[in-house]
Amino acid sequence: MNIGMIRAAAKRLAGHVRNTPLLSSPFLDEIAGRRVWVKPECLQHTGSFKYRGARAALSAMEPGLRARGVIAVSSGNHAQGVARAAAEFGVPAVIVMPSDAPRLKIANTRDLGAEVVLYDRATEDRDAIGAALATGRGLTLVKPFDEPEVIAGQGTVGLEIAGAAAEAGVGQAEVLVPCGGGGLTGGVALALAAEAPGFRVRPVEPEGFDDVRHSLESGRIETNPAASGSICDAIVTPSPGEITFPILKAHCGPGLVVSERDCLRAMALGFTRLKVVIEPGGAAALAAALFQPEALEGGDVVVVASGGNVDAALFSEALRRFG
Amino acid sequence: MNIGMIRAAAKRLAGHVRNTPLLSSPFLDEIAGRRVWVKPECLQHTGSFKYRGARAALSAMEPGLRARGVIAVSSGNHAQGVARAAAEFGVPAVIVMPSDAPRLKIANTRDLGAEVVLYDRATEDRDAIGAALATGRGLTLVKPFDEPEVIAGQGTVGLEIAGAAAEAGVGQAEVLVPCGGGGLTGGVALALAAEAPGFRVRPVEPEGFDDVRHSLESGRIETNPAASGSICDAIVTPSPGEITFPILKAHCGPGLVVSERDCLRAMALGFTRLKVVIEPGGAAALAAALFQPEALEGGDVVVVASGGNVDAALFSEALRRFG
Repeated sequence: MNIGMIRAAAKRLAGHVRNTPLLSSPFLDEIAGRRVWVKPECLQHTGSFKYRGARAALSAMEPGLRARGVIAVSSGNHAQGVARAAAEFGVPAVIVMPSDAPRLKIANTRDLGAEVVLYDRATEDRDAIGAALATGRGLTLVKPFDEPEVIAGQGTVGLEIAGAAAEAGVGQAEVLVPCGGGGLTGGVALALAAEAPGFRVRPVEPEGFDDVRHSLESGRIETNPAASGSICDAIVTPSPGEITFPILKAHCGPGLVVSERDCLRAMALGFTRLKVVIEPGGAAALAAALFQPEALEGGDVVVVASGGNVDAALFSEALRRFG
Repeated sequence: MNIGMIRAAAKRLAGHVRNTPLLSSPFLDEIAGRRVWVKPECLQHTGSFKYRGARAALSAMEPGLRARGVIAVSSGNHAQGVARAAAEFGVPAVIVMPSDAPRLKIANTRDLGAEVVLYDRATEDRDAIGAALATGRGLTLVKPFDEPEVIAGQGTVGLEIAGAAAEAGVGQAEVLVPCGGGGLTGGVALALAAEAPGFRVRPVEPEGFDDVRHSLESGRIETNPAASGSICDAIVTPSPGEITFPILKAHCGPGLVVSERDCLRAMALGFTRLKVVIEPGGAAALAAALFQPEALEGGDVVVVASGGNVDAALFSEALRRFG
């Protein structure tokens, strides 16, 4: 896993992924007490950065193998990314999703042409379901984060941040990334370590699901006590990966933790000030930048708004409470 | 008024305006029955394209005159554009706004540093108020649309559309633009006539406020019977301008008219499919592209989503009804 793989992924993704802009607002700067630059990956195809990793993984596969189809296990954003990438290559995709995933994410995954297999989080083992389907049908598993080509694809977010920040004259900044298993955070950290060494990446997690922060503190992979129960469903993962954790350990600053309430507040400000739709987990980094200014250093902070796949009712609740 | 002025404005705006991306979604393509490309000017600074024209006008002013300050009469988006441009140049701005303008637009204009003077639409003459302030304080009026440098600034949207469409391999398309006084529509039409002659621009207006459509049909400037009373406040203007109308007449195809209901439906789809916040008037072109496919020609349609300054309650209503 190295910067060369990220650059190679960027070449394969050119013309397919959207180079999302860096957004800003004087109103957000004022709240944060520093300049805030938002990388809205909610505007990416399928509404999250996950399409990058999925397309990177599928484009790196041996064509004969790829033609037999792919399978993914995901609560939603990775599901849609894999479904779209598979549709673009014209190959079958089976997605194993929890039956309590956001309605919109399940519907979109189906509408993108994938076969969705639902399972019950409480009583069924998703990995066993996935393994049985993979073996039975000759499908290749596309892991959500602990997979070099997936990390390389997510790392292209970091290359774009480096380019856009240089254009904006920003040479030093903390870069906050909503963090689940560490694919995006690790990829961005690797990219920036190579291309923008004045930048320091920091993972941001929701309260109660801060396995990466604990792991960075203890120096070894730690696991959350609970497996679910957060509105930040996109970034609830039991622990960092075997491949992602060493990258995070080598390149990231201390983790940050945000409340669900602050994620909803950040979503409302994304609506009012940036005109983008951010889902709760995707708003975690923005929440940290806005509401924990004392935890950050320097005059500039870059945040990734990693996804926007939120149901209308929850988005409206954020607006009602904080809009 | 010519393409040279638009190119000159683009040079002055470089590094200040955001080059907004062209967004798309297979779900929108399916509804429309053709490829839909959305230019989200809601992501522009101040939440609408109006900042382009305002910055273009202020940057073209003689510095001594500019230093004395500017004044604008606006229900909201032009107000914010002028307020921000004036703040950037460090000059005073006075904005005359109707007291029933969306709350968010009034608050933002103030927060951007402008002095807001409210008037009552029913009993007061906004132009008289503006003229008295301009004369009394030596302020220069920045008109919202019937002003060559403003049209030139808005026309930079057309230059960007031409560039991005060429990159996407789109050589022919109808380009739908939400139309009030015709500054944006006229500027885009002039730019595309010069840079992308396979494109045809068509103004889109809300029901009951389709003065531009009527004017294009009759060949002379027509006026709406009502002056207000639409949720599409951003594009409710009594008639096209003396400068904009000849441009529209020379370069635009027939006008389109959309219902308020379809604007709300388009806003909900902007939320679900594109993750952008569009205000009702800003969604008029998207509504026409999605829900009036029979009125359009060709396999590609480009729509400008011209602004995103909508109050949370109205946005939530769109989601509740159509999300």
